[in-house]
Amino acid sequence: MDVKKLLCQVKEGSLSIEEAQEMLRLLPYEDLGCARLDHHRRIRTGFPEVIFCQGKEKEHLKKIFASFRDRQENAMGTRASKEQAEFVSEEVPEILYDPISRILKLEYEKTEQTGLVAVCTAGTADIPVAEEAAQTVEFFGGRVERYFDVGVAGIHRLLAVKEDIDRANCIIAVAGMEGALASVVAGLVNKPVIAVPTSVGYGASFGGISALLTMINSCANGITVVNIDNGYGAGYVATQINRLVEKKDG
Amino acid sequence: MDVKKLLCQVKEGSLSIEEAQEMLRLLPYEDLGCARLDHHRRIRTGFPEVIFCQGKEKEHLKKIFASFRDRQENAMGTRASKEQAEFVSEEVPEILYDPISRILKLEYEKTEQTGLVAVCTAGTADIPVAEEAAQTVEFFGGRVERYFDVGVAGIHRLLAVKEDIDRANCIIAVAGMEGALASVVAGLVNKPVIAVPTSVGYGASFGGISALLTMINSCANGITVVNIDNGYGAGYVATQINRLVEKKDG
Amino acid sequence: MDVKKLLCQVKEGSLSIEEAQEMLRLLPYEDLGCARLDHHRRIRTGFPEVIFCQGKEKEHLKKIFASFRDRQENAMGTRASKEQAEFVSEEVPEILYDPISRILKLEYEKTEQTGLVAVCTAGTADIPVAEEAAQTVEFFGGRVERYFDVGVAGIHRLLAVKEDIDRANCIIAVAGMEGALASVVAGLVNKPVIAVPTSVGYGASFGGISALLTMINSCANGITVVNIDNGYGAGYVATQINRLVEKKDG
Amino acid sequence: MDVKKLLCQVKEGSLSIEEAQEMLRLLPYEDLGCARLDHHRRIRTGFPEVIFCQGKEKEHLKKIFASFRDRQENAMGTRASKEQAEFVSEEVPEILYDPISRILKLEYEKTEQTGLVAVCTAGTADIPVAEEAAQTVEFFGGRVERYFDVGVAGIHRLLAVKEDIDRANCIIAVAGMEGALASVVAGLVNKPVIAVPTSVGYGASFGGISALLTMINSCANGITVVNIDNGYGAGYVATQINRLVEKKDG
Amino acid sequence: MDVKKLLCQVKEGSLSIEEAQEMLRLLPYEDLGCARLDHHRRIRTGFPEVIFCQGKEKEHLKKIFASFRDRQENAMGTRASKEQAEFVSEEVPEILYDPISRILKLEYEKTEQTGLVAVCTAGTADIPVAEEAAQTVEFFGGRVERYFDVGVAGIHRLLAVKEDIDRANCIIAVAGMEGALASVVAGLVNKPVIAVPTSVGYGASFGGISALLTMINSCANGITVVNIDNGYGAGYVATQINRLVEKKDG
Amino acid sequence: MDVKKLLCQVKEGSLSIEEAQEMLRLLPYEDLGCARLDHHRRIRTGFPEVIFCQGKEKEHLKKIFASFRDRQENAMGTRASKEQAEFVSEEVPEILYDPISRILKLEYEKTEQTGLVAVCTAGTADIPVAEEAAQTVEFFGGRVERYFDVGVAGIHRLLAVKEDIDRANCIIAVAGMEGALASVVAGLVNKPVIAVPTSVGYGASFGGISALLTMINSCANGITVVNIDNGYGAGYVATQINRLVEKKDG
Amino acid sequence: MDVKKLLCQVKEGSLSIEEAQEMLRLLPYEDLGCARLDHHRRIRTGFPEVIFCQGKEKEHLKKIFASFRDRQENAMGTRASKEQAEFVSEEVPEILYDPISRILKLEYEKTEQTGLVAVCTAGTADIPVAEEAAQTVEFFGGRVERYFDVGVAGIHRLLAVKEDIDRANCIIAVAGMEGALASVVAGLVNKPVIAVPTSVGYGASFGGISALLTMINSCANGITVVNIDNGYGAGYVATQINRLVEKKDG
Amino acid sequence: MDVKKLLCQVKEGSLSIEEAQEMLRLLPYEDLGCARLDHHRRIRTGFPEVIFCQGKEKEHLKKIFASFRDRQENAMGTRASKEQAEFVSEEVPEILYDPISRILKLEYEKTEQTGLVAVCTAGTADIPVAEEAAQTVEFFGGRVERYFDVGVAGIHRLLAVKEDIDRANCIIAVAGMEGALASVVAGLVNKPVIAVPTSVGYGASFGGISALLTMINSCANGITVVNIDNGYGAGYVATQINRLVEKKDG
Repeated sequence: MDVKKLLCQVKEGSLSIEEAQEMLRLLPYEDLGCARLDHHRRIRTGFPEVIFCQGKEKEHLKKIFASFRDRQENAMGTRASKEQAEFVSEEVPEILYDPISRILKLEYEKTEQTGLVAVCTAGTADIPVAEEAAQTVEFFGGRVERYFDVGVAGIHRLLAVKEDIDRANCIIAVAGMEGALASVVAGLVNKPVIAVPTSVGYGASFGGISALLTMINSCANGITVVNIDNGYGAGYVATQINRLVEKKDG
Repeated sequence: MDVKKLLCQVKEGSLSIEEAQEMLRLLPYEDLGCARLDHHRRIRTGFPEVIFCQGKEKEHLKKIFASFRDRQENAMGTRASKEQAEFVSEEVPEILYDPISRILKLEYEKTEQTGLVAVCTAGTADIPVAEEAAQTVEFFGGRVERYFDVGVAGIHRLLAVKEDIDRANCIIAVAGMEGALASVVAGLVNKPVIAVPTSVGYGASFGGISALLTMINSCANGITVVNIDNGYGAGYVATQINRLVEKKDG
Repeated sequence: MDVKKLLCQVKEGSLSIEEAQEMLRLLPYEDLGCARLDHHRRIRTGFPEVIFCQGKEKEHLKKIFASFRDRQENAMGTRASKEQAEFVSEEVPEILYDPISRILKLEYEKTEQTGLVAVCTAGTADIPVAEEAAQTVEFFGGRVERYFDVGVAGIHRLLAVKEDIDRANCIIAVAGMEGALASVVAGLVNKPVIAVPTSVGYGASFGGISALLTMINSCANGITVVNIDNGYGAGYVATQINRLVEKKDG
Repeated sequence: MDVKKLLCQVKEGSLSIEEAQEMLRLLPYEDLGCARLDHHRRIRTGFPEVIFCQGKEKEHLKKIFASFRDRQENAMGTRASKEQAEFVSEEVPEILYDPISRILKLEYEKTEQTGLVAVCTAGTADIPVAEEAAQTVEFFGGRVERYFDVGVAGIHRLLAVKEDIDRANCIIAVAGMEGALASVVAGLVNKPVIAVPTSVGYGASFGGISALLTMINSCANGITVVNIDNGYGAGYVATQINRLVEKKDG
Repeated sequence: MDVKKLLCQVKEGSLSIEEAQEMLRLLPYEDLGCARLDHHRRIRTGFPEVIFCQGKEKEHLKKIFASFRDRQENAMGTRASKEQAEFVSEEVPEILYDPISRILKLEYEKTEQTGLVAVCTAGTADIPVAEEAAQTVEFFGGRVERYFDVGVAGIHRLLAVKEDIDRANCIIAVAGMEGALASVVAGLVNKPVIAVPTSVGYGASFGGISALLTMINSCANGITVVNIDNGYGAGYVATQINRLVEKKDG
Repeated sequence: MDVKKLLCQVKEGSLSIEEAQEMLRLLPYEDLGCARLDHHRRIRTGFPEVIFCQGKEKEHLKKIFASFRDRQENAMGTRASKEQAEFVSEEVPEILYDPISRILKLEYEKTEQTGLVAVCTAGTADIPVAEEAAQTVEFFGGRVERYFDVGVAGIHRLLAVKEDIDRANCIIAVAGMEGALASVVAGLVNKPVIAVPTSVGYGASFGGISALLTMINSCANGITVVNIDNGYGAGYVATQINRLVEKKDG
Repeated sequence: MDVKKLLCQVKEGSLSIEEAQEMLRLLPYEDLGCARLDHHRRIRTGFPEVIFCQGKEKEHLKKIFASFRDRQENAMGTRASKEQAEFVSEEVPEILYDPISRILKLEYEKTEQTGLVAVCTAGTADIPVAEEAAQTVEFFGGRVERYFDVGVAGIHRLLAVKEDIDRANCIIAVAGMEGALASVVAGLVNKPVIAVPTSVGYGASFGGISALLTMINSCANGITVVNIDNGYGAGYVATQINRLVEKKDG
Repeated sequence: MDVKKLLCQVKEGSLSIEEAQEMLRLLPYEDLGCARLDHHRRIRTGFPEVIFCQGKEKEHLKKIFASFRDRQENAMGTRASKEQAEFVSEEVPEILYDPISRILKLEYEKTEQTGLVAVCTAGTADIPVAEEAAQTVEFFGGRVERYFDVGVAGIHRLLAVKEDIDRANCIIAVAGMEGALASVVAGLVNKPVIAVPTSVGYGASFGGISALLTMINSCANGITVVNIDNGYGAGYVATQINRLVEKKDG
């Protein structure tokens, strides 16, 4: 908030007190009734708006994406069902849908991809979450390398790619079941590891809680954790780190 | 139960029906009032009696160990407090106490140690549980090799001893915190791995539950799990496997 | 890893340093993109590859089994849905599917069955998990005897088969609800008991957690536990023990 | 409440409306400020008052027992600490304290013991809870037989006393750890089994929850459950059943 | 087991030792392959066999009920789905199905109903579980009175029927959500209260756990608890108590 | 209960003792067999009857609403499915159904709306629960202002409406996921905040438990909590407070 | 925040832009290094500052209370240990400590007590929490009536005081164990009931969780819940309601 | 591992095959028996060794720190008790102990502090964990700014320092109770937020689980989470990010 400029204008009289009062309250979002879209978000944070689609009414989603289409702004939706995707694309036909990651995407302006984030999975069943993470990083302008099915049950597969992984600015480790991948990766490389537990598993995996606990309790250094299946959240933080590192080069 | 012999005696008249009825009820335990000691256990199973001391009254423990002393039988107590040990040794001065493993031991007859069981720990704080396991195997006549502080946060320490571990008939993997050791060991060797979660850790380790869940959900093959801190239970099963393997040599 | 031989070849010059470096990294798996198949696994461990089908994409499964078909290797899939089975068999018609155990199987070479593993269940509803365990043992070359519906609510049924069970090298005890079967079996016989909790039950059975806790907390000696409904895992460990015992005979 | 008699008195004029209103509100308890003692309870229910001592202020307890002493009424306190017992006995020296069951007792009038309740424990560490149950039954006028240390890990000990147990009107089964005793007892006898989980155990026994779940999920018929360590509650219900059965004889 | 008679026959020579050995093992159940039916159960316990249908294969159920039909024995199935009921009735058309309680019933011989059990529910949504309990009691020969929708949110409804309830030999209190009904009933009457938590509720009721905990922790005397939704289990114990009380009259 | 009047009539003889006894038992509800409707409730409490529809049999609901229709009384049903609504409206066509809040409503007499309750949500997915709360307040005669999608992830949106919210007599804060909205609202305004956790979220949100715990543990003053998704309960309490405040004006 | 006045001063030039910027940042708290005291809080909210003492360093507490003493402001500390109280009173001898409620109090100016809040407990062990609630209300200027030991196990005790309770503006219901008191109170009166679960109980009461769940799941209308043992929080909200109601009279 | 160089030496004959085999196994740690110290760690990762002291034997700790002292290497111990600190300092008197953060430190060589990490706490009771995090960053060479007691209950305190916090390379947010601080911080600034739940709280805060869940479920972008009270872990990751950002400047 550029309070100083506003105060200057008040002082100069180019802004009335009432207007100033109002502006201090007026925030740069658009009120659609059901949602308050934050179109200035990209300017403020450098991140375009992302919509969490799960559980939202189809009609609401259509309204939201239409609003971005009208402004020709990039926007991404996560956890969109096939049904939601089809409903929105009736109104916004240029929208793209990836059934694996369940990402909906409007991309009017391609973002260049810089830096490097490594995305690893323990098994093949973890791929949907890993793709949500990877595509989030890419949507936000990061470069991604994927290392899938390198879980600890056959640790030679992971050792074989250790040096490749170590080149990244940070690593996203995606694993369900016992979730030990993050510990072993953090023991092998010396970069921040963002651990994503997945709901892959059965029985006492409790829909991902076992993997979450493994990661939270890891005795390896350099691990932080996001919510179960939260590929988007991991991708967002990985982007923040990747950008912080790369920005300094310029 | 040698029912056949008993029935023969009934038929021959060398045993009355009433006596037979009684003998079918009479079982080879000694009723101390507070406990029913199973002195024939060793004959039946090949395992001497083991007493779980935690929570038992000091007076009860003294009575129990005195009974074994009177018969000059080997006996072991687990999870004995220092206070319990001192109280019992007033009456049974030849009893031995190890404050690390908290094992109380009467060993009138030394058992020869055969076969091989490997006992690994993730960290140094897991040693008390590992010692309970190792000394249980030794008490029951198994040979033990110890590999302590080989946790996955520095996986090179484990890789360095992989081949030594692989020579054992089975492996006991002891770990707290995130408990990933068992998965990695089972991924490296091809022997039964008995995983012992420990209560080492803090916060969301929930007194060992995190490690327990990791081990139960392991995607590596060949892992079974015992209760948190249950070094004795792991030692017992390891002994069973070790004996089954070795007995065939004879 | 035959590091010695490799080092010899380097010394002799029959292997260049670059080749050696590469070979130390190159591991005997096949990268299908979605999965890294471990075709050498059988040679290394004596166990053919087994695929956990649940949650895997149908297309991925088809690719995986086709790869084994192409090499005419035995392979087994667990927790396959009927739909997955049908989809795979379009491409690999010789594949077998058992709807009770949900096992998919390619068996080009029949394995001889040796040793003995006893598989017990508490009730009839536990049979699917028990069959997964039993057929796993059989696929890996073990002989199995089944004792179904011998739960503790009518303990005479279990006592009636006690001596048969005791002849096995190890016992798999499968039970849901309160899961007391494992304790009672371990109290009756003196062989390793691998306890498999099942999700059979309702209310406070919490999808198998009650049975899991019962088994983990058992005061009987000789019990280790695998994950809820993890018949495969129990079968794998039972095979390891069965082989260890039998191999010594030769 | 004898509403009819009261209404008659109102009609006859021997009771004013105001008095009747008051009596409808006035209940036969004594308000000590901190507690409302129900001295008529014994008349209404046939059960003397019982005080749950744990967590109560020493001063409050002293006041309460002094009130019973003043009326020379029998009274029992459960879960009393040694310190509480000593404090109360300064004022009420005739009070009795049993450190095993932690029961405090005023017994001015001895109650005859009729019927039969069997109290079983799985191990010796369960004895304190079992004694709370047994002494509760005895205080309320029931006859008790004790069968301690008959847990399922050595099932022959339980089978040996099966027929004795079966003679009781109901059975209290006290067990910690995996708590399988109740299931096996209920499978052997055909009387109501009141299951008392105890906090005996460690690790994943979660202070008795494992035993509680085992008992609640039992597939044997005839089991109901009370709270962890709630020997008193089990004794109360056992008394109700024992009395209902015996009363009919008269 | 009439061991004495058997032993007499052995002595007299009317029974060979081998036959006796066999008979000690042979138990009066019928092995259908998938299930071991206990046709002598009724003779031993006075209770006809009851089948827990949930999760059982339709084919298995059909076999089981046909076996009872062939012997013209009463039998009851609980938690039967409509689909199971229809499948069985193709083979056994005289079978009865109640969609509310989900009970399947073969009743060749009507049982007279004696004694009295009161069945209360907190709300209307608890009726299915209450009916399972009530019909179980009736099937086993007990008389039932139903008091539905008398939950504590409007306590006057319960007070209005207090005296009727108090006439029963025992009370079954069925409640979901916060499950306070059992406490209040036990505070009002002086008979054993068998509390049945139900899975009625939402949010933090956790499928009945909240009600289960309320009942297990009740500070009222005389309450024991069965599993969530376990109407059958409550009905069984209520029958045991009801019979114990009534049998003494004869 | 006008006990005094009744007693007077007994005294005067205008009411027989037997009638009085009956009247003390007769309570102003209508027994439909499956439910006991409390038609006097509105007179007693000022709140019309509200039916919790979830899990109720369609036939039962139809009977219940028909009973209100017959008396032309206002009535509301919560958590009604579309199918239930359609079934009831066959018999009671004037009934209204809102698919967002899932409220069924009979409103023969419009209630005037007074006072002010603010209803806030963190996100758009929380709207159904918020609408249940808001429409409950309105049905009971309160005025509502809605502030949706003002969650803490973009705190400027909440700050922008702070002063509007502060004018209400109390605030309902509806939030899923991490549920921090209630804390921040209570930190900003000085009115009672009724926090409603919702089941919106995934992974470790555990169907609303995370939000519930956040709200229960809030370090802000002035927050109380209702069950997950319990919009109705929040609306009820908000109405009580709103009425208490407004009634004093008159 | 009086933004308008500030803006006016900027416009008039009586305040420089830099000063205004600073003032917008400067908030009326005092930074003690370890804590930021909010001395203007009372002016803003009408509530004096309250310190949560548990877990705070003694030295910090002394500094905090000395600061209030220096300004001769009323202040209250909750959950203060006896040791903390003694340490603070060395520096601030006029401070008052109540060992039951564990409240520390500086009261330079007595607040008049208006309105009415009823505080009920289920048992005597709940009194400390109830006193924290009651004394909080009194400290904030509300009148309190106490109804202790009126739990549902003897419901006549509660019915006897129903009408007294109903006169209050709101009711605080304090209960541990099964926590049914709140449901029954809310069923009897028609005022907001603030339910406080306590950690009183044992076994499956889980330190108050059972009571918390009971209260959160209550099917009675008009209940909201605060954290386990959070008497202060209940007292705060009760004060808010009490003030809102009473303020309107003026 | 410099495998290439080693292979070269083998080829050249300057290293025998046996020596090479040994070196491939020999890893740069020192085996103290109880622990395997990784003295090369600093060279490999740039981080000196850090010892987790909690639960370690005093004798083991003394040995470990003496080993670092002998090499005059910096070393840090976390979660050291006062007793451990005193025991170690007998042998290593130059060791420093901070009772707030419970950090033990050997610092022979001062590390320069670069970059910037902001450490915020919600309350004063969170300071010990925050200090562990802050001092970890400082020990590893990062600059720290502390913002304590800026929790969301008084959000103006946080808003007042928002811009200062935003200058850091990443933010550590430390909070117990409901743990909402991390969400609000992440909503205000656009840097990675490492959230540390603390065990501060009571009742349903479950020793920090409530705060952990809040943080894991946060709907704000840019948050990752470490274990409860794991200040060290947060400090480590913050250092990694801080270094990655700063290193690029050079």
